Amino acid sequence: MKQEKISPRVIERLTKYLRCLENLNPEDYISSEGLAEKMGFTAAQVRKDLSNFGEFGIRGKGYNIRKLHSDIEKILGVNKTNNIILVGVGRLGTALLSEPEFTKESFNIAGLFDKDEKKIGTEIMGKKIRDLKEIEHFTSSKEDIAMAIITVPKMAAQEVCDVLVKAGIKAILNFVPVKLDIPEGVVIENIDLYGKLQELNYWKERKLK
Amino acid sequence: MKQEKISPRVIERLTKYLRCLENLNPEDYISSEGLAEKMGFTAAQVRKDLSNFGEFGIRGKGYNIRKLHSDIEKILGVNKTNNIILVGVGRLGTALLSEPEFTKESFNIAGLFDKDEKKIGTEIMGKKIRDLKEIEHFTSSKEDIAMAIITVPKMAAQEVCDVLVKAGIKAILNFVPVKLDIPEGVVIENIDLYGKLQELNYWKERKLK
Repeated sequence: MKQEKISPRVIERLTKYLRCLENLNPEDYISSEGLAEKMGFTAAQVRKDLSNFGEFGIRGKGYNIRKLHSDIEKILGVNKTNNIILVGVGRLGTALLSEPEFTKESFNIAGLFDKDEKKIGTEIMGKKIRDLKEIEHFTSSKEDIAMAIITVPKMAAQEVCDVLVKAGIKAILNFVPVKLDIPEGVVIENIDLYGKLQELNYWKERKLK
Repeated sequence: MKQEKISPRVIERLTKYLRCLENLNPEDYISSEGLAEKMGFTAAQVRKDLSNFGEFGIRGKGYNIRKLHSDIEKILGVNKTNNIILVGVGRLGTALLSEPEFTKESFNIAGLFDKDEKKIGTEIMGKKIRDLKEIEHFTSSKEDIAMAIITVPKMAAQEVCDVLVKAGIKAILNFVPVKLDIPEGVVIENIDLYGKLQELNYWKERKLK
């Protein structure tokens, strides 16, 4: 296992391999060429990505799909349930809660937080909405809450981020279109819908020519 | 203007510069060093990115913020209103409709489509929900609809994608966690929430050590 310097792109591709493998027969074998073709990558890329984490294939036979799926899950740490909290139970937060993917076992939304007094104490999808102020107490009284999703209004985002960091959150999925300041030791992924539309718009204009 | 081979990463960074500039005083000037510091990039990166599209700064003074913002908007084609259609008016689709960013002028949601008969004909946020089957007629009868957002269930995604391509859509923002087959000449951006959580989970485990 040589895990010194893994690029974020490698990890991104691992999640894509996982998604691809999910749609295949777990009893089958697939070659790096076969997997590469499905992904639109090269076979060398597939082999290189996986070689970062060990030996997975069988020479002449390829990868057993069930085994490779399970191995990638282990690498990503999604072979177990990971607790998440969600902050900001507005339309987008509520929509995310009901996404079918969140019914999978790898992620469990363990707590919902908002600062709207009308929402605090009510339930949504069978989960209680708690006061933002309770985050630190909540995360310290439960084990293994290290990840949060932020879907609050723009103005509140940095404040919420600071509260989360103080509460020991190590990974943040941020849907708010602002660049949040985070200290070393915390990772963030920003999902910027508007930015993505702007990017698409650039390429679209070129496709129309 | 040398626009031969622009990398997607350059365009992604342009959207980030734009977002950064929005929060600054439009009358001020900013150096490439100043912009780089705010972005967490290097000044050389900023200068290189912008040099793909012309000369923007004034030597010794830097970039005028209003001018640079307006120039980047022009590059991305978001200095005008671009029409979009949204397919799949479920929880996520509805949540996106009400995102405050969509009230900006660069993107206008010109049509909503669904195949649920209970929804067809009703209105949401003042916009009528139309039958999926009407897409081709709708896009051909209106000018300038070249972009679509897909927020349908997984099973329906490829079918919807094919309909959109047939209807002349050139750019797709896909929220469905499947790899959609698209022909040459169409661009797609996938927003994979679950994949992003899996990535974060990998890095989180390393931060916790």
